[in-house]
Amino acid sequence: MRVGVFQFAPVFGAIETNLKRVEEALSQVEADLFVLPELFNSGYQFASQEEVAQLSEEIPGGLTTERLSRLAADRKMVIVAGMPEYDPAQDKYYNAAVVVGPNGYMGKYRKIHLYYKENLWFSLGDSGFLVVEMASGVRIGVMICFDWFFPESARSLALQGAQIICHPTNLVLPYCQQAMLTRSLENAVISITANRVGKEQRDKDNEELAFTGQSQVVDVQGRVLLRLSETEERVAVVEVDPASALEKKLNVYNHLFNNRRPEHYRSMFPK
Amino acid sequence: MRVGVFQFAPVFGAIETNLKRVEEALSQVEADLFVLPELFNSGYQFASQEEVAQLSEEIPGGLTTERLSRLAADRKMVIVAGMPEYDPAQDKYYNAAVVVGPNGYMGKYRKIHLYYKENLWFSLGDSGFLVVEMASGVRIGVMICFDWFFPESARSLALQGAQIICHPTNLVLPYCQQAMLTRSLENAVISITANRVGKEQRDKDNEELAFTGQSQVVDVQGRVLLRLSETEERVAVVEVDPASALEKKLNVYNHLFNNRRPEHYRSMFPK
Repeated sequence: MRVGVFQFAPVFGAIETNLKRVEEALSQVEADLFVLPELFNSGYQFASQEEVAQLSEEIPGGLTTERLSRLAADRKMVIVAGMPEYDPAQDKYYNAAVVVGPNGYMGKYRKIHLYYKENLWFSLGDSGFLVVEMASGVRIGVMICFDWFFPESARSLALQGAQIICHPTNLVLPYCQQAMLTRSLENAVISITANRVGKEQRDKDNEELAFTGQSQVVDVQGRVLLRLSETEERVAVVEVDPASALEKKLNVYNHLFNNRRPEHYRSMFPK
Repeated sequence: MRVGVFQFAPVFGAIETNLKRVEEALSQVEADLFVLPELFNSGYQFASQEEVAQLSEEIPGGLTTERLSRLAADRKMVIVAGMPEYDPAQDKYYNAAVVVGPNGYMGKYRKIHLYYKENLWFSLGDSGFLVVEMASGVRIGVMICFDWFFPESARSLALQGAQIICHPTNLVLPYCQQAMLTRSLENAVISITANRVGKEQRDKDNEELAFTGQSQVVDVQGRVLLRLSETEERVAVVEVDPASALEKKLNVYNHLFNNRRPEHYRSMFPK
């Protein structure tokens, strides 16, 4: 199975430009599964709620879901892509990820752990961690950026059956890429972290954000199969073995899931 | 606050020899808290249940707890040390760790996640993760070796209030030392991993075990404050700031504990 990432610097507010870049990049490669960065179509550093409203779309139903669905059908790929969502029923905005495949819309995930000023613009994700099954039978899970910091995120996805964790990011802290080796290892899952590059500083009242690139694919033993540089814009694909993520036995005595002892983890779960 | 580790190669079955080495090593240094390897007094590779019985002691009440208590009083230290425990009430054996301080016995921990053939010799720990308070008010938690593989271990200790995770180990896999950076970072705790060195192969029916050393102390941001080599026998001490582990805020919007959303981690906790 071939999986890919497109690491690039989205232009803030330029949905059409960003969509075209993705369509062009993904037309260059063959892959079964492709992961794009967090908020790939909008850019990251919002300056007002009006901007959030302007750049958010319904999932499904909006332009970005439609264009990505067409691309997924043309390229015979599953695509996982971070984007801002507007939910008209709730009149709320979410930092979300959409999953589309050759047959169209497959699901969405709303970020559960919002980072920093995202808390100003978005509501906390209300729909749980998402695991969906590809036509091949491979189950993929989705978490977004800062979710990585909470070990419960990858753990929940793995226990829900995810073999591959698709992880759109806009990382500005230096920790995640290395920590994802532990996330893959401790759960025996493949992880695909698709980060952006470049900088954003919308105006002088905002900090300059420098995104750290190093998009990567990690195997079930925490080995880096692919890692891009901190700055390059690049599409990359690598071969992974999703069956390796079905085996949770470490040895004849140890099983990563069956050896868990929730009765001793009570502090993690208030009654 | 000064914390230390003694990385050495215990001689299998030679409790008195191993105790003397520890007494000698700890007399060379000043520290507030000292961590010794897993099964430091007995060695690791048991060949029969009779050997386990021969080398296990009551905690408290046994020779090792008594000798370590005297040492802790002399040196004005808290000592955390891995050792095999016999519980006469249950007629069971545990891979345990004892905590002693200047005023004597402080508590014990029975390993919750047993590794590999430990499952042949020991019962699964039945008493939960241990957090005890030092006279200074600093709270220390204990987990043993393979517990690291389960993110729930360090998480549970941190949520129970541990500022410093004391981690006696006999590591043979290559993953733990790097992963402990993530364990410290994700919980904003200091971690002290005290590993052994050397090899054990009791007879030709057993694999040769090569222990990986690299005992280390890691701060709340996942920075390595101290790391020994893969082979040297050495006592080492480093300064840490336990107050840093009381702060779980990452920034004005994010708090590592308060941002947890257990309602979305349900797959981790069967009803």
